[in-house]
Amino acid sequence: MTVGIVGAGQLGRMMALAGYPLGLDFLFLDPAEQPPAAQLAPVLKSAFTNDDALGTLAGRCEVVTIDWENISVEALRKLGRETRVSPPLRAIATAQDRVREKRLFEKLAITTTRWRAVSSRRQLDSAIADIGLPGVLKTRRMGYDGKGQAVLRTAADVDRGWTLLGQVPLLYEELVPFDLEVSVIGVRGRSGESQVYPLNHNVHSGGILRLTRAPYGNARLNRLARQHVLAVMEHFRYVGVLTIEFFVRGGRLVANEMAPRVHNSGHWTIEGAVTSQFENHLRAILGLPLGDARAKGYSAMINLIGAMPGRAALLRHPGVHLHDYAKEPRPGRKLGHLTVVEDDAGRCERQARRLLAELAPEIHIP
Amino acid sequence: MTVGIVGAGQLGRMMALAGYPLGLDFLFLDPAEQPPAAQLAPVLKSAFTNDDALGTLAGRCEVVTIDWENISVEALRKLGRETRVSPPLRAIATAQDRVREKRLFEKLAITTTRWRAVSSRRQLDSAIADIGLPGVLKTRRMGYDGKGQAVLRTAADVDRGWTLLGQVPLLYEELVPFDLEVSVIGVRGRSGESQVYPLNHNVHSGGILRLTRAPYGNARLNRLARQHVLAVMEHFRYVGVLTIEFFVRGGRLVANEMAPRVHNSGHWTIEGAVTSQFENHLRAILGLPLGDARAKGYSAMINLIGAMPGRAALLRHPGVHLHDYAKEPRPGRKLGHLTVVEDDAGRCERQARRLLAELAPEIHIP
Repeated sequence: MTVGIVGAGQLGRMMALAGYPLGLDFLFLDPAEQPPAAQLAPVLKSAFTNDDALGTLAGRCEVVTIDWENISVEALRKLGRETRVSPPLRAIATAQDRVREKRLFEKLAITTTRWRAVSSRRQLDSAIADIGLPGVLKTRRMGYDGKGQAVLRTAADVDRGWTLLGQVPLLYEELVPFDLEVSVIGVRGRSGESQVYPLNHNVHSGGILRLTRAPYGNARLNRLARQHVLAVMEHFRYVGVLTIEFFVRGGRLVANEMAPRVHNSGHWTIEGAVTSQFENHLRAILGLPLGDARAKGYSAMINLIGAMPGRAALLRHPGVHLHDYAKEPRPGRKLGHLTVVEDDAGRCERQARRLLAELAPEIHIP
Repeated sequence: MTVGIVGAGQLGRMMALAGYPLGLDFLFLDPAEQPPAAQLAPVLKSAFTNDDALGTLAGRCEVVTIDWENISVEALRKLGRETRVSPPLRAIATAQDRVREKRLFEKLAITTTRWRAVSSRRQLDSAIADIGLPGVLKTRRMGYDGKGQAVLRTAADVDRGWTLLGQVPLLYEELVPFDLEVSVIGVRGRSGESQVYPLNHNVHSGGILRLTRAPYGNARLNRLARQHVLAVMEHFRYVGVLTIEFFVRGGRLVANEMAPRVHNSGHWTIEGAVTSQFENHLRAILGLPLGDARAKGYSAMINLIGAMPGRAALLRHPGVHLHDYAKEPRPGRKLGHLTVVEDDAGRCERQARRLLAELAPEIHIP
């Protein structure tokens, strides 16, 4: 049984590592020279939209999935004529377009920020008149890790933001004064069966996730997040793993965005949950029974960004699990992550803080 | 950093799966057409003793290890002139020869069975006169999974056993009326640092391991096993994972044999220990700090032998972890294993019995 994955980054790599024990084979499609998954599975080296490569992938794989959501939906639609593609293209298309995403949240009664679509300077001014400053100007498409965004606080910011981003369709939304950021990860199988992981508490710095703690939050907040992710998955008759990121403001969830895939904030599930997000994604898209999404103890996940610390220095911390993505170092690049799992929440937190103090002392940890 | 592995079976495969997250590369050497590790790492297809292939392996790998102990020590010695080889060849040579192994146990005051070396029919008769019947006649070399052994209870058995095995050097030992079989897995690093996993309780059928429960036994038995594995590792200045199998007779340990490698009875450590035996073997041979060998809860590991059950049927049991080795089915062949991990010993046992009743109802589980 061969699983095709469009995109051979670290998410695809971790999917393959989770899938080999299930007896699966993998075939990737990626234009990069030596993407992270290439070390452990064959890769068709090609543009994501190349018809020949897509044809080969479709012909050799029982099911095709993605490791990156900004993939051409047109290309995936072609694939879908020849093989099964999961998650559903409508969900991927919605996640690619912040306006469709906002409309979906509103339709499903999931609280989100106030927003306006912006495709001209006049519309931007009118959006600011409605929503006020400060706010965030974002490209409708192709945003990730804080890229394609500008925070507008002053009239000068508005000019700069428009100059920077005004060439493409945009969205302007209120800047939410949030207490913290969380995410919820759900998985839905072909039969409609679902599992939802406990909430993740995510700490960002410079637009990049640095630390995730899980499980996070009280039963009420977890129940609410669970309802939301189940509602989105039902809406799409979704198959696979889906993530929604929220701001928490005064104990309420405000949806920020969704990702139709396994997610950085769920990497702790490899060691910290009964079944990892990667294995559950594969189980879902193959029509297999889903695995238990419960957490085992308390986990903290720390991203390794820009430079890879020495292996020995990381591993001398007892109980640290290292995940090296085999990527070339580059400033701001996610090169790997660490996970610690402890029975005791306090011990987990102390371990995480000790590691972060050593690895990234510049980061403020709330 | 490339790790060379002589033998590309399921043990090598699971080593690679444990090593990729550490940022390691792998290169295997194996004569088989499509060995289990070939799915996820390059394999030099060659006889284990081929000088050219061994030269390539040595040239491309910072360290070389084994996934099978019946490898030519001469070939490994050649490798050792060009690269680092772990575990030490003396330990591998000892594990390959039941007579050297028995002498080692005796030297280190590790209780073992009464035994005699046998290389003629006359010596066999004399060994039986000393030790009595019943007993077990075993080839000195190349035994595994109950192969190369004959239980002798009657004079007719003695004739049959001699006819079957008499062409090669043998060992005759008493048949131990044991209560149960256990194994201990230790790991020792280059610096002399060591970790020992808790005892495994192993249930065999037809000479093949079917079920392992861990952690097993009281503190006294664990302490004793720990002393023994530490003594053997110290003796060899061992580097890597080492396993010793024991019979338990009246609450005492009687050493049966040792394996200079990761072991089937330690597969539960992938999900059930803080650090798996595979990761710890790699850490050891690379001179990295060892990981914590403590168990997380209670584990049961069930081997899948001869035929692979359907994936969906296995995965519908909540919390079951499947490990499929991607091998062609063949009677008596180890094709994969299942692990369950539970906080509660009783729940773990019920899960294991439920699975075994479904998969191998013919096996008697003590």
